[in-house]
Amino acid sequence: MTQLRFALAQIDTCVGDLEGNASTVLRYARMAALKGARVVVFPEMTLTGYPIEDLALRATFRKAAADKANELAQALKKEGLGELYVVVGTVGTSSATDVDGKPTNRLVVLHSGSVSSTYDKHFLPNYGVFDEFRIFEAGERSVVLDIDGVKIGVAICEDIWQDGGPVAQLAGQGIDVLLTINGSPYEEGKTHTRFDLAKRRALEVNAPVIYLNQVGGQDDLVFDGGSFVVDSDGTLIERSPMFVEDLSYFDFDPDMEHQTVGSVADRRDPDEEIYTACVLGLKDYMTKNHFGGVVLGLSGGIDSALVAAMAADAVGGENVQGVSMPSMYSSDGSKDDAAELAENIGAHYDIQPIEPLFQAFQSQLGLDGIAAENLQARIRGVIVMAYSNSKKLLALATGNKSELACGYSTIYGDAVGGYAPIKDLLKTRVWELSRWRNKAAAEGIGVGGLCIVGNEGGKAGTPLTNGVMIPISSIEKSPSAELRPGQKDSDSLPEYELLDKVLAAYIEKAHGRASLLRDGFDEETVNTVIRLVDGAEWKRRQYPLGPKVTSLAFGRDRRLPITSAFTD
Amino acid sequence: MTQLRFALAQIDTCVGDLEGNASTVLRYARMAALKGARVVVFPEMTLTGYPIEDLALRATFRKAAADKANELAQALKKEGLGELYVVVGTVGTSSATDVDGKPTNRLVVLHSGSVSSTYDKHFLPNYGVFDEFRIFEAGERSVVLDIDGVKIGVAICEDIWQDGGPVAQLAGQGIDVLLTINGSPYEEGKTHTRFDLAKRRALEVNAPVIYLNQVGGQDDLVFDGGSFVVDSDGTLIERSPMFVEDLSYFDFDPDMEHQTVGSVADRRDPDEEIYTACVLGLKDYMTKNHFGGVVLGLSGGIDSALVAAMAADAVGGENVQGVSMPSMYSSDGSKDDAAELAENIGAHYDIQPIEPLFQAFQSQLGLDGIAAENLQARIRGVIVMAYSNSKKLLALATGNKSELACGYSTIYGDAVGGYAPIKDLLKTRVWELSRWRNKAAAEGIGVGGLCIVGNEGGKAGTPLTNGVMIPISSIEKSPSAELRPGQKDSDSLPEYELLDKVLAAYIEKAHGRASLLRDGFDEETVNTVIRLVDGAEWKRRQYPLGPKVTSLAFGRDRRLPITSAFTD
Repeated sequence: MTQLRFALAQIDTCVGDLEGNASTVLRYARMAALKGARVVVFPEMTLTGYPIEDLALRATFRKAAADKANELAQALKKEGLGELYVVVGTVGTSSATDVDGKPTNRLVVLHSGSVSSTYDKHFLPNYGVFDEFRIFEAGERSVVLDIDGVKIGVAICEDIWQDGGPVAQLAGQGIDVLLTINGSPYEEGKTHTRFDLAKRRALEVNAPVIYLNQVGGQDDLVFDGGSFVVDSDGTLIERSPMFVEDLSYFDFDPDMEHQTVGSVADRRDPDEEIYTACVLGLKDYMTKNHFGGVVLGLSGGIDSALVAAMAADAVGGENVQGVSMPSMYSSDGSKDDAAELAENIGAHYDIQPIEPLFQAFQSQLGLDGIAAENLQARIRGVIVMAYSNSKKLLALATGNKSELACGYSTIYGDAVGGYAPIKDLLKTRVWELSRWRNKAAAEGIGVGGLCIVGNEGGKAGTPLTNGVMIPISSIEKSPSAELRPGQKDSDSLPEYELLDKVLAAYIEKAHGRASLLRDGFDEETVNTVIRLVDGAEWKRRQYPLGPKVTSLAFGRDRRLPITSAFTD
Repeated sequence: MTQLRFALAQIDTCVGDLEGNASTVLRYARMAALKGARVVVFPEMTLTGYPIEDLALRATFRKAAADKANELAQALKKEGLGELYVVVGTVGTSSATDVDGKPTNRLVVLHSGSVSSTYDKHFLPNYGVFDEFRIFEAGERSVVLDIDGVKIGVAICEDIWQDGGPVAQLAGQGIDVLLTINGSPYEEGKTHTRFDLAKRRALEVNAPVIYLNQVGGQDDLVFDGGSFVVDSDGTLIERSPMFVEDLSYFDFDPDMEHQTVGSVADRRDPDEEIYTACVLGLKDYMTKNHFGGVVLGLSGGIDSALVAAMAADAVGGENVQGVSMPSMYSSDGSKDDAAELAENIGAHYDIQPIEPLFQAFQSQLGLDGIAAENLQARIRGVIVMAYSNSKKLLALATGNKSELACGYSTIYGDAVGGYAPIKDLLKTRVWELSRWRNKAAAEGIGVGGLCIVGNEGGKAGTPLTNGVMIPISSIEKSPSAELRPGQKDSDSLPEYELLDKVLAAYIEKAHGRASLLRDGFDEETVNTVIRLVDGAEWKRRQYPLGPKVTSLAFGRDRRLPITSAFTD
């Protein structure tokens, strides 16, 4: 048994893009070979992208994926990389004949020009955002690779989250390394859960654990990367950055002493992490759907300001089109704040007053009350979509989780857009992130490179601006939809500090009415929030896709991935 | 062993409405008792409604359902119905303590004031529109009820669709009757599949099979009822009507000879069936979401005409608000056709020209090409939603499956609405159903009572009109969006006769490119259709809920039922 260099290729794949994903594998394999790697490890379902959802059920897609794996093995050999062991994920099939079998979630090794050492995922998650039991058949046997005498047990994602199964089987086999490839989506606080889990498995198999995770946004999920290695006693000895593609190395040495890695930061700023996750989600949604720029309404309020800042961090302010659409109820302060924000981030900025349009509709329709308020929001929606259509820009919806949960938004109005960057952020979090972004701007911390958190490699981007990014008055003023004179959000909703606490308990923890009262919330507030949330279900379902970042408790909205690039 | 009268209570439940569903059970149990029934059978998940989706995961809901079952058993006893055996479905839990257990899909018997004889569904469907493995734990044991010496084996829906499991267990136990309660959604051609299946199971257990199905629309599914009984040799001996609530009877007699039922119609008109399914889906969506009327744009085209006719059949023409929104590109013929349709169905009818509004937007935005076309559609969307908001009407989207599949619609424009009655009908089917509806009107066949198909009980409604309902020119003219001068659908799409055949193969049968070519379609058409369909994925996902009627191959769009009435 000799030393063995593993390369941890933490890459950003695209669902359905077999060609593009294979070409990324080839590129990283080349780099890894130059650095003397013997084994290059890629994330779960590398070739197909993940989560693949019902695309796996198309036999023609499975056939194309199988062909691509063989082709890639040949291409590696042709480039003189045949001696590398390239570990990739793909879709398999439970039967020998592609068409009849049920799909499997598969790990294969590309070596010497061919595809070998097939392992099929055993535990298929089917909760929260996961639907794997729907689409995959479970594998039943564990697999140990022997590379230069080093015995490597393999596992795919959920396999290490459940007791029993393949890891339990491997525990008795005296393996030297446990290698797990993952598509583990970002969720607040998940990093340390993963460390704890890997430590437990390392102790179980008495070997180091390599945890390789994918990175990047895919529809409404964001994968944070943050791959790592723990020693056989669970000590963290290697760590890749979060939110960026990365190639790190782990030198397995049977005689090595336990090491600790100096650069592991134990205390991370959750605001920084979540902000970065939102930016990456947006950036990848644009890339994978071939959008070069965005358009959004800038009201002067905090939601649109934060979304605009995220967009500028994702694709540069010059690719952001802000549109101010003041009505007769818009305050001068709001108009000034919108203009200031646009200037701070370097966005294109147009003013499209809606009053003449509103009057034109009203002369025909004569609406009042809520209908007249919604009319204003819908005129703005039409304008945003006109920019989107004529300039090929992705329209961004700016709604936050608190208002969406309560139905405090206009369907086909402010809800218009193809992507909603802050749909999973409660309003109080929107304020926190805005303050954090200003602090980052003042301190010269950049997010353009997306590598703030865990940036041991020193790859932090450069700040877009110095000083204040989001106007202070946008952060500090009382929230208002400005759809009638003197309107405040607090006319219709509990104060956000209280509302957000109730929403977190009711939605994310699924506390019922009795539990909420036991939580100490007053009865009137509880009744109001339950009525609003339950009543808003329909409206909420019509909302654009956006990144899940604070809770993965609920399922995905859609069954075929939106950013699938597969055409068969 | 004596004679035993079973009542088949084919009822329409609402997800989450424990109170309303229990009260329907009580009402039908009373009626059945008056007719001498000993056993009253209700559909799968009677108390909770079906499909319950993630609502089952809320512990507070499971607790409320358990309380409601006990309360209902008591209420039956209090009314002197304690001696009845009332078979209902509900949500159970795999553990003795409600909060910790995983939910189960349960059958219980209410008798003598208490809840007994628990059976948990064994096979959990997790394909197409079904997500049961996600939310339920599977039961493991079969259950045989003994009522007056008659041995009744029980099963829930999927249990009889799979070989093995509870039916195989029951086969060896000499049961007298196999009773299955179902939530089986309508799908074209499914009736005979169910007969064939029941026959197979009858032969397997050597006993009559009672197949009790729910009826009614629930979000994007339509349950067609059509409950039935087959004799031990598979002969159909009793059949309930489709698409309406019903109470039928089956007298089990150990000495009876095989009977055939005179009224079973073997040849059914698929147009009639599908039209009725769409009407029921709409009617129930309105009832369960508390809408009394609808609004839709009437263009003079066939899609909006058919949707308006369905709406009139669902809730009466006087509850339909049609709005004609002509532009400078609308032909006189179209305007006349819209007015004629409104008159035929007795709808309210307004004319709202969009040209002044279009000009107001254009003076600010100066759009051309597709953006200018979409602007017209979006102005119409704003007007429809203004009617919806101010008059509390459900907005109906009028898009058909062919145009949605190809993205030939305007998101936030003609796609606006809360429900889309014909979203699962290909354009050629839209024409067929329109011709059928005219024929039905001419012949005095009604669909207001919803009981056309299988109406052995003679409960057919009365026709809304005699003579032509949908203007002939709406059916016969070339389809056009009328968003620019001289525009025809065929400028952008293959002719619908061809397009629909390719769509059926590509979408419903999941034929890939090579298969489509082998199917005999020409390469140019195949390439065009694949490009359109794959590119329209995002737009299609933003489309309103509508009834699935021709294919259940794809999953549900949403995880929490929209029409849930549960507030906890």
